Amino acid sequence: MDRQWQLLGLGFVLGVTALCASFVGGMYFQHKDARKRLQELVQTDPYAYYLGPKIYEVYNIPNQFSFFKTNNEVDHRMRQIMKYGFPGLDDLRLYSDFVLSYDRRNRVAHWVCEHLQADSIHPNRGRRGRNPYQPDLSVPSNFRSELSDYRRSGFDRGHLAAAGNHHLQQNHCEDTFFLTNIAPQVGEGFNRGAWNNLERYVRNLVHRFGSVFVCTGPLYKPNERAAGKWAVEYEMIGLNMVAVPTHFFKVIMVESQLHLGKPYMEGYVLPNAPIPDGLPLRSFLCDIREIEHYAGLKFFDGLRRSALFGSNYPSESQVFREFS
Amino acid sequence: MDRQWQLLGLGFVLGVTALCASFVGGMYFQHKDARKRLQELVQTDPYAYYLGPKIYEVYNIPNQFSFFKTNNEVDHRMRQIMKYGFPGLDDLRLYSDFVLSYDRRNRVAHWVCEHLQADSIHPNRGRRGRNPYQPDLSVPSNFRSELSDYRRSGFDRGHLAAAGNHHLQQNHCEDTFFLTNIAPQVGEGFNRGAWNNLERYVRNLVHRFGSVFVCTGPLYKPNERAAGKWAVEYEMIGLNMVAVPTHFFKVIMVESQLHLGKPYMEGYVLPNAPIPDGLPLRSFLCDIREIEHYAGLKFFDGLRRSALFGSNYPSESQVFREFS
Repeated sequence: MDRQWQLLGLGFVLGVTALCASFVGGMYFQHKDARKRLQELVQTDPYAYYLGPKIYEVYNIPNQFSFFKTNNEVDHRMRQIMKYGFPGLDDLRLYSDFVLSYDRRNRVAHWVCEHLQADSIHPNRGRRGRNPYQPDLSVPSNFRSELSDYRRSGFDRGHLAAAGNHHLQQNHCEDTFFLTNIAPQVGEGFNRGAWNNLERYVRNLVHRFGSVFVCTGPLYKPNERAAGKWAVEYEMIGLNMVAVPTHFFKVIMVESQLHLGKPYMEGYVLPNAPIPDGLPLRSFLCDIREIEHYAGLKFFDGLRRSALFGSNYPSESQVFREFS
Repeated sequence: MDRQWQLLGLGFVLGVTALCASFVGGMYFQHKDARKRLQELVQTDPYAYYLGPKIYEVYNIPNQFSFFKTNNEVDHRMRQIMKYGFPGLDDLRLYSDFVLSYDRRNRVAHWVCEHLQADSIHPNRGRRGRNPYQPDLSVPSNFRSELSDYRRSGFDRGHLAAAGNHHLQQNHCEDTFFLTNIAPQVGEGFNRGAWNNLERYVRNLVHRFGSVFVCTGPLYKPNERAAGKWAVEYEMIGLNMVAVPTHFFKVIMVESQLHLGKPYMEGYVLPNAPIPDGLPLRSFLCDIREIEHYAGLKFFDGLRRSALFGSNYPSESQVFREFS
């Protein structure tokens, strides 16, 4: 009888243990299942990606890095491109090889972010059709720019993310021709001149340093009318009223392969106007905080500024020494 | 011996059932726990609220309405105010009684959304201090407008969400004095004239119809320079460069207590300039799609336009018949 009770007791303990294990198993199953679906959401929706850390906190996962690593997941493209944070949050759009924020009021992007590596900037591989430019139909018609807006406007359809930076796959290059990635640029002396030189300079950096982040966009800079009186003025073209930016900026961040492994950052502002040949690019260098002020954006905020090697002090940086 | 085997079999079945139940219980526990924390996130973060339906889909919950109802939760304020969708997604900010999207480039809001009911528009209760206006320190300093920007600018500090609409609690009213909710407005003949009349008209609607949604914001409208040549031009004031909008809009949606229970929507656009007394408000009525085009926003997109009683056709609507 004694042994029977003992057996019963043992059975009871084992049963309760099994029940507990099953309960925890159920929790784990539900947890893992929800996590997997969340992960899919985060990889395709830029807002979900932005919120990612907050959502993961709900699951008590310390950070998304460990989250992805434990799943042996390949890094998804958005995570690579947006590694150092979003400059702004207006109407985010994910394309095959770049991320863009669209300004529905001006019908030109706020910014376009790219992550460039040597294998994506190979010289033109696939040949493109006659007129690869196309409106992005995912933008509501009331906010969309069309091919007709640029026709006979006197302005070039200028790329923000340069076509030459996205040659890894055919669709990468095609995506740069969506009109969301296009802005009205002065052709002679700008789009076909200084701006083109700046794009080539960026590709040069990629060849030398391997991993470069670029954020490109328009500026609508005020100018002084009278003493202390400032005003913003810019043209609008086409029936859909596409804004003609007064300037364009490019903020460049070189990530790696530098002495001491410190990142390096510099910003350029070029007026949307004919620029005389022979002016060095260095003359367009601009304080990044000033670009941020006029654009209303924050660049590479995930990097602590103090950790930067050359921000705003390009003359001291290795990149600059090599190129000067 | 036979009965012993039967008992053992029964025990086994019971045990397996208990294990299964425990597993499901564990899933449910984990599910409910994560749900509760998600709910807290959704109630305080506008981006989480915007993403809500997509996040809930991860849990296979058909829609957030049932989600909240089953929990017997009191409606949180953001859900009431943003019931019909976000006009835009740039830099969303939740205040105690309104939701705002901030334009970091112009240092004036893109839009402010309010939900007005009779008990919030009681005449002034709490007395306010001398200078209740204050900068919102949660905006990064590079994008913040300050009291000094408005001083001696010649412009009034004009409310977007009117102070007189938020008298339910002391902090509701105080929040409307944050400079994020303020824009440079012409004083004589506008802020103290026609714009004030429009705000009183809205409160009148609330008294009569009970539940009114209002979305208010600035416009930077282009004007024609030469034949077919359009340009945008607006002033910037202060050291921080705060934009002076050329126009202001108000889109009003009356929700309930109308014949057939259909909602009613109308939009006003007033120039930021002295407006002669005696001009009827009706002369500032504007097609809502036109406001959307110039502002780059979408108003009350959660309502199907076809379900609207009076949008763009105010003369046919009951609201208009009563007020004309």
